[in-house]
Amino acid sequence: MADRNRRMVLAERPTGMVDESTVRLEEVDIPQPGAGEALARVRYISIDPTIRTWMDDAPGYLPPIAIDEVVRSGGIVEVVESNSEQHKPGDLLFGFSGWQDYVIASAANGYQPLPDGVSPTLALSLFGITGMTAYFGLIDVGKVKEGDVVVVSGAAGATGSTVGQIAKIKGAAKVIGIAGGPEKCASIVDDLGFDEAIDYKNENVSARLREAAPDGIDLFFDNVGGAILDACLAQLALRGRIVLCGAIASYNESGTGKGIANTSNLIIKRARMEGFLILDYFDRLDEGRAAVADWLGEGKIKSSEHIVEGLENAPDALNLLFTGGNTGKVIVRV
Amino acid sequence: MADRNRRMVLAERPTGMVDESTVRLEEVDIPQPGAGEALARVRYISIDPTIRTWMDDAPGYLPPIAIDEVVRSGGIVEVVESNSEQHKPGDLLFGFSGWQDYVIASAANGYQPLPDGVSPTLALSLFGITGMTAYFGLIDVGKVKEGDVVVVSGAAGATGSTVGQIAKIKGAAKVIGIAGGPEKCASIVDDLGFDEAIDYKNENVSARLREAAPDGIDLFFDNVGGAILDACLAQLALRGRIVLCGAIASYNESGTGKGIANTSNLIIKRARMEGFLILDYFDRLDEGRAAVADWLGEGKIKSSEHIVEGLENAPDALNLLFTGGNTGKVIVRV
Repeated sequence: MADRNRRMVLAERPTGMVDESTVRLEEVDIPQPGAGEALARVRYISIDPTIRTWMDDAPGYLPPIAIDEVVRSGGIVEVVESNSEQHKPGDLLFGFSGWQDYVIASAANGYQPLPDGVSPTLALSLFGITGMTAYFGLIDVGKVKEGDVVVVSGAAGATGSTVGQIAKIKGAAKVIGIAGGPEKCASIVDDLGFDEAIDYKNENVSARLREAAPDGIDLFFDNVGGAILDACLAQLALRGRIVLCGAIASYNESGTGKGIANTSNLIIKRARMEGFLILDYFDRLDEGRAAVADWLGEGKIKSSEHIVEGLENAPDALNLLFTGGNTGKVIVRV
Repeated sequence: MADRNRRMVLAERPTGMVDESTVRLEEVDIPQPGAGEALARVRYISIDPTIRTWMDDAPGYLPPIAIDEVVRSGGIVEVVESNSEQHKPGDLLFGFSGWQDYVIASAANGYQPLPDGVSPTLALSLFGITGMTAYFGLIDVGKVKEGDVVVVSGAAGATGSTVGQIAKIKGAAKVIGIAGGPEKCASIVDDLGFDEAIDYKNENVSARLREAAPDGIDLFFDNVGGAILDACLAQLALRGRIVLCGAIASYNESGTGKGIANTSNLIIKRARMEGFLILDYFDRLDEGRAAVADWLGEGKIKSSEHIVEGLENAPDALNLLFTGGNTGKVIVRV
């Protein structure tokens, strides 16, 4: 065991991408577990776009990360010392570990055991927030149904790649992914079974949507917002549904975006656009995990993961989400 | 009876507001009713924002009005000569009369008798498309419920003024109308019972919404789109609902609008934005009309009407909707 706890705290609020002045690596004493608590070593950190939103001093569904506070994130931790009957050394737990080496873990502060037989990286990807976001967003909010023409943005990302696969499982007539660059586009079609891919960096998204979904989009699962959302709004089918999961295109902006021009197409098409957060589904995670476990067992779904080594590289890992440098779920191995 | 049928046809597609070159008044022979048909004199013409959208050569829920075609609109007609057992001279019927003096009316081309005991102007306002749009939009799409904080844009207009009154009847905790100018704002509060009014021409809508709805907007019924929609998106309550009924702010634009910046607030607030068209509710109009008849009988709802005299003034009447020159339902008396 190292003598000290390395942790990355928010030094100043970023205005665009996270850079070297955004976070500060500091060393403090390893915390001591109290009665009923365990000391745990952080093994894997979940890198999610929402972390960037928590760095802004703006109202959100959770409070902003305070200056000098450890950067908030989910993670998988391993118990190393325990004063609790619930936890013994070697146990793997999921919780809000933050970007650091050691945490105090207990059921009271939200740490839970991993689902049976699920590896740490799967626990953060398909069985974690990512996979569950895809599952409930597509099924509960988007009401995906057989025969739907489904479009997914951020399709090579953690959530998007899962959404496309679940849409196929649920009988979508066609699943079209929007991703950046020919490699990602090839990957979602060849490896993950998407029917078609649109390369937003090299193709005209609007024109390609009209070709690929000539009768319109029944369901659009949006991870990016901005111009891609606008293009999909324009190509909606009658009674189309848009699930707003993320707006990654705007997270690094400061109100400089062009804005959405095609909302009134929601009227003409009697269509619906709805946002959701996975935290509203925390009491139904068992349902989603059971479905994912079945599909995984049947070989119908794959996890796509992008592992970054070392706590000190967490800021770069976060930036990957915005530069599109990742394919699949970004996880930092500490 | 006049010898000729005066009619206003679309001469050229407008780029902004309708002007003298948009429509052409022409005289043609009065049409002759065939077997099972009636000749009817147009008495009242319904002036609705959607007419302006039909003048554009753009896909919509109905085809564009063709060049040289009579301008499409709803109207109340009076049978003057009949070859049908269903219609006798003096009968008042509702249908798509268009902007002209005479039409051939039959059940086959969609003409229906007025509801019992309902005057022609009420038939076009509270009992017509306008009132039914307010009723089904608020109740079926918006799912208005007791205790809601409701905001209505275009609040002094035909639909908006009805929406606010129905929201109060349905137990909304607070109904806030957004309208242009102090007279309209006074009118919706003093005459129609809105709790509060925001004058978008003279007040900062965002600031006033934060004051008037400090805990957020539960339901926003939008008739205008644009900057007002954006301001309401920013002030949504958790699980807020936006009913998109119209986007009058953009009907005279050609893609020059600034666009909507706050769609991602739908995610944070797990909120829904949904468009609708009253034509999807044509099989349920009896339900809406029965409710309106009850409320009218109980003195709980008022019709607000703005009558313009003369077929030749129909283009100016249409422009009133966009300049905000009207209070209530605009109707042309032919």
